[in-house]
Amino acid sequence: MGESDVKVLGMWPSPFVMRARIALNLKSVDYEFLQETFGSKSELLLQSNPVHKKVPVLIHGGKPVCESLIIVEYIDEVWASGPSILPSDPYDRATARFWAAYISEKWYPSMKGIGFAQGEEAKKAAIEQVTEGLALLEEAFEKSSKGNVFFGGDEIGYLDIAFGCFLGWLRVNEKLHGIKLLDQTKTPGLVKWADKFCAHAAVKDVMPETDKLVEIAKILAAKARAAAAPPPSN
Amino acid sequence: MGESDVKVLGMWPSPFVMRARIALNLKSVDYEFLQETFGSKSELLLQSNPVHKKVPVLIHGGKPVCESLIIVEYIDEVWASGPSILPSDPYDRATARFWAAYISEKWYPSMKGIGFAQGEEAKKAAIEQVTEGLALLEEAFEKSSKGNVFFGGDEIGYLDIAFGCFLGWLRVNEKLHGIKLLDQTKTPGLVKWADKFCAHAAVKDVMPETDKLVEIAKILAAKARAAAAPPPSN
Repeated sequence: MGESDVKVLGMWPSPFVMRARIALNLKSVDYEFLQETFGSKSELLLQSNPVHKKVPVLIHGGKPVCESLIIVEYIDEVWASGPSILPSDPYDRATARFWAAYISEKWYPSMKGIGFAQGEEAKKAAIEQVTEGLALLEEAFEKSSKGNVFFGGDEIGYLDIAFGCFLGWLRVNEKLHGIKLLDQTKTPGLVKWADKFCAHAAVKDVMPETDKLVEIAKILAAKARAAAAPPPSN
Repeated sequence: MGESDVKVLGMWPSPFVMRARIALNLKSVDYEFLQETFGSKSELLLQSNPVHKKVPVLIHGGKPVCESLIIVEYIDEVWASGPSILPSDPYDRATARFWAAYISEKWYPSMKGIGFAQGEEAKKAAIEQVTEGLALLEEAFEKSSKGNVFFGGDEIGYLDIAFGCFLGWLRVNEKLHGIKLLDQTKTPGLVKWADKFCAHAAVKDVMPETDKLVEIAKILAAKARAAAAPPPSN
């Protein structure tokens, strides 16, 4: 079971897929990136993740691992000789896992909600929710980074990956809605962190250009509108 | 920071709180169980878990750890001298984490949905969803237990705790709705496992009697009905 026997089933615009790819890059593991076609699911995906039928799936030595944060922990444990992704202290690990779960389950769904908000009031409320979340994350960054550039200290770690994968889509929201989410006054630590994260060798070739994501966002929005529209009359 | 300096903020009927308590019992860690009052949140809870304001919280040496599965991993890492809760093999760990997340995020919400279903059709659909989930878990049990009594082998592990904590509420559903969820024909492995799990020394004093949970379920249902009822007319 060599390192070359690693595949990632994914799609390039997916922040969750990015988590797996950044973790593999950090460990200098070569992998084959098998892209799913938008709007359909490959036989290999359905076989590898029959419960959720979702990307990413990491296939290592023919065995599938599903769910992005579980994949990141798996990579950290299997290629233990590379730089450590999870913090070594149990309390720091628990804290990193807490914020990673918060980002995945609360903060990112809020950010997705900005685009789906009905009316200006609802949109304003959604933006406020996202901004409040970022204030919490700025505070978490101060505590976790301990004066360094990353949540993980002087190297990218679990929480950097869990949060950083959404920076492309955060910029899409800023652009499409004419708002500023990461802000020099309110989240100065995160502003600096975001730049460092996106420029990191393990990230820069995996993080899509904002304009390409904007195109995807427009296609998705058009599809959502078409699905919600009443059927054409005769 | 001694072992005696361990507190759990919780409520006895909560399956999530049970996870933390079983993990501490497995590691033979003494702890103080601080129960929240139903319908209100203590100052200590609000301070310890300001983001989610939810139990359980483990307080160890004055520092809070939140989210039940994160607490279980923390306990496993801190009291590493006791029996291991997570499997030692990275692939087995990833598999245990996968099913623990499935149970928490998909299966348990489905089971909760049985009681809230509107009409017989919806109730039937909810029961079917839960039963399908149990068939998946029966399969996972066969693979994971490798002929032993627990998901974790011959000792209770992470997935046993993550799933087993819901057995009390599963029995409440069986009783209140006159159905059989764990079934000798369809889930023979899980039937045997459930008995062994509930009789285990680390579990038996923490798992509430079904009749007591039924009382709680009735109170919760009455509250939900009252909240949904139209205001009384003059």
